[in-house]
Amino acid sequence: MEWSRKDLVSIAELSAEEILTVLDVSATFKEINRREIKKVPTLRGKTVVLLFYEPSTRTRLSFELAAKRLSADTVALSVSGSSFLKGETIMDAAMNVMAMIPDCIVIRYPYAGLPARLARELSCSVINAGDGAHEHPTQALLDLCSMRERFGRLAGLHVAMVGDIAHSRVARSNVYALKKVGARVSVVAPKTLLPQDISTWGVEVWHEFDPVVKDADVLMMLRVQKERMDEQCFPDEREYAHFYGLDRRRVDMMKPGAVIMHPGPVNRGVEITHEAADGSRSIILNQVENGVAVRMALLYLCLGGSADDR
Amino acid sequence: MEWSRKDLVSIAELSAEEILTVLDVSATFKEINRREIKKVPTLRGKTVVLLFYEPSTRTRLSFELAAKRLSADTVALSVSGSSFLKGETIMDAAMNVMAMIPDCIVIRYPYAGLPARLARELSCSVINAGDGAHEHPTQALLDLCSMRERFGRLAGLHVAMVGDIAHSRVARSNVYALKKVGARVSVVAPKTLLPQDISTWGVEVWHEFDPVVKDADVLMMLRVQKERMDEQCFPDEREYAHFYGLDRRRVDMMKPGAVIMHPGPVNRGVEITHEAADGSRSIILNQVENGVAVRMALLYLCLGGSADDR
Amino acid sequence: MEWSRKDLVSIAELSAEEILTVLDVSATFKEINRREIKKVPTLRGKTVVLLFYEPSTRTRLSFELAAKRLSADTVALSVSGSSFLKGETIMDAAMNVMAMIPDCIVIRYPYAGLPARLARELSCSVINAGDGAHEHPTQALLDLCSMRERFGRLAGLHVAMVGDIAHSRVARSNVYALKKVGARVSVVAPKTLLPQDISTWGVEVWHEFDPVVKDADVLMMLRVQKERMDEQCFPDEREYAHFYGLDRRRVDMMKPGAVIMHPGPVNRGVEITHEAADGSRSIILNQVENGVAVRMALLYLCLGGSADDR
Repeated sequence: MEWSRKDLVSIAELSAEEILTVLDVSATFKEINRREIKKVPTLRGKTVVLLFYEPSTRTRLSFELAAKRLSADTVALSVSGSSFLKGETIMDAAMNVMAMIPDCIVIRYPYAGLPARLARELSCSVINAGDGAHEHPTQALLDLCSMRERFGRLAGLHVAMVGDIAHSRVARSNVYALKKVGARVSVVAPKTLLPQDISTWGVEVWHEFDPVVKDADVLMMLRVQKERMDEQCFPDEREYAHFYGLDRRRVDMMKPGAVIMHPGPVNRGVEITHEAADGSRSIILNQVENGVAVRMALLYLCLGGSADDR
Repeated sequence: MEWSRKDLVSIAELSAEEILTVLDVSATFKEINRREIKKVPTLRGKTVVLLFYEPSTRTRLSFELAAKRLSADTVALSVSGSSFLKGETIMDAAMNVMAMIPDCIVIRYPYAGLPARLARELSCSVINAGDGAHEHPTQALLDLCSMRERFGRLAGLHVAMVGDIAHSRVARSNVYALKKVGARVSVVAPKTLLPQDISTWGVEVWHEFDPVVKDADVLMMLRVQKERMDEQCFPDEREYAHFYGLDRRRVDMMKPGAVIMHPGPVNRGVEITHEAADGSRSIILNQVENGVAVRMALLYLCLGGSADDR
Repeated sequence: MEWSRKDLVSIAELSAEEILTVLDVSATFKEINRREIKKVPTLRGKTVVLLFYEPSTRTRLSFELAAKRLSADTVALSVSGSSFLKGETIMDAAMNVMAMIPDCIVIRYPYAGLPARLARELSCSVINAGDGAHEHPTQALLDLCSMRERFGRLAGLHVAMVGDIAHSRVARSNVYALKKVGARVSVVAPKTLLPQDISTWGVEVWHEFDPVVKDADVLMMLRVQKERMDEQCFPDEREYAHFYGLDRRRVDMMKPGAVIMHPGPVNRGVEITHEAADGSRSIILNQVENGVAVRMALLYLCLGGSADDR
């Protein structure tokens, strides 16, 4: 298919066909990343600005490597130590960056909606690297990439997301993506960690983990946000681990072939034990590897690299 | 003309001819920045170190993009998290950087005079990215670039700078530059925000804004340093805005063709309103775009790139 | 000789022949660094990740320039502002970086032993940029490089290290290296700044500085860690300078041809005076210059660049 988007703001706006196109292109770049010379000239002379208003290492590193391996020039701006804090509005800051004529802005921002607004107002490509509790579309794409790689398909897979669904942009983007490609989605969480409108999401809702463990092809464990404990969303780490953590007992209940995923960073001993995170069912590090390939694919598609350079 | 400087420390040291040469070369690079492939091999194999002892995003980003688009290697060092703070003198730090044989050091420093000293003592190029309240020469050059682009000339233009003249390196560099190229310069400020030696600057001094609004070709609004309010330099933001802010009423008084400039970051509602900053007279974002081109021109000239590579 | 290591974790593990190979290769790269075009394509398409869990500028800058001048792509991650702090273990962080398939991780870490563990567990190259009080092998190699450059040999040289031997990874790596290549090593320090096992190091131990000053070919002044003063390791800066500082009187006592070294950053007026640090015997800045060349040599050797590209 032809790719016609300059931006990636949300999974919600993508068609199933677009999602599958990203995964197809990613496979090519994954192969390049495993070469000795992991660099192609596709985006030579293009400028990618990484604008991160939340601390992040993994996602920033992944995007930065993706851009560099496509031969783009990158500049990373983090919020700390920045004049962007001198009372300037975020839109002024963004318009300023835009005036320097980058080809792409990768933006992470603590509140929902900014990437969509930038995509509308700026002529360059805008890629959402996470906006508040809204979406984290590249995470969902790398997750689907990792599932399809393992199972050869996405339609009909039973994917269970476990943990803080309410505040997770990872969960939201994954639910959108998985439903579009025909997967069956369960969410497992206490009521305090579910969004109020969960009944409209079109997913199965579980408050107990064990029944789902036995039936899912994929257990996607979400990171516990420890600061939520103060907000009475859940009692303490030990009790959370008991009810919603993935430990050896639950791993032993999993279906043959079923896999464990986690978007990272992992709280070992809380949502997942060492045995589960490091065991043979875990594809957590595949997710990380695919992250670079998926981001290369998106930069390639949105910035309009020529297919000959790929 | 032949360019014979290895450094850019101040506008004070430049001749009118040198200033115009920078502007001429900038025009070439501006055109390159608008190409799809915005990169030339001019400074391939050269090293540019960005040494910023004050927080900055806009200027650092502008220099970094300028260097990368010329194919130079860049390393950015910010003061925070740096061993340069472990009691080492700034000259020791600079000599250490020099020993790694960069071709250019771009330096921002909170006190006046360091770039001049580095330029004298180091064999590499030194470009001043702002030293205390002394000078910010690349800002003045990009400002002149933006004016000449709009008016086709600089001689005879009436440029009014409004606000904190006393503490502004932007004002100081612009006054030097504008007078050299034959512009007429007014400054508009309360006495508390004027330098003591203002009578020696050779500019017209105004305490009221309205008479100047009607006559100037360029209104250059300076950023209010909110920390000055504590120092009894001016009463409060509301009163400042009333006497010295650029609002719709004043915009309507401007001459046909007159433009609004601001070095950024903008304090909306203080020295300038939304209507003025975003209206059709504003060339604020042109300034930002020209900033990259001017810095490319300076790196090109000071580092002695061959004219064939341009 | 053939180089067969993918990692550089410690000087302790290197043979004398390996040390001399690094020095030989460094000489080639030093020459490249002095060219107008200081860049070779040796590591094009390779990725070097700089993972610094301690503040550093000098060492990070040196490695970053070394990698860039070999045409590698670099990404620098500093601990501050990083999600690596969100309760993630260092091994999880490292495995995540590894999953993005870098060719080399340069690691600085406040506790001993991590680089060795990473070298064992990761398939990419690992270079130790300093781990706790254990080793700082690239510093020792650049020190030896600087000595050999000056004296034409290492065997038989008398090298005296002066100061906080107990807590210095620089001292430890230098002692290992110098003994392997046949130098004579003295350490000069009060008992409180000597390690308990100093008698097993095979070095001459001095508590008085003057007798050593007269006899050494190299005086390597170590940086005073001012935080040690609180720990009753030494009384105050003035007394430290009197007993163990290098001042004009002691410089005048040095042998003809003897040189002064310091790993930086320098505490002027404490372990060394201005006259000594900036005088004709000081080769402190040569050390810094050689640092880039030595790190280029190590990246080249460990990442297996082809000799034809050098």
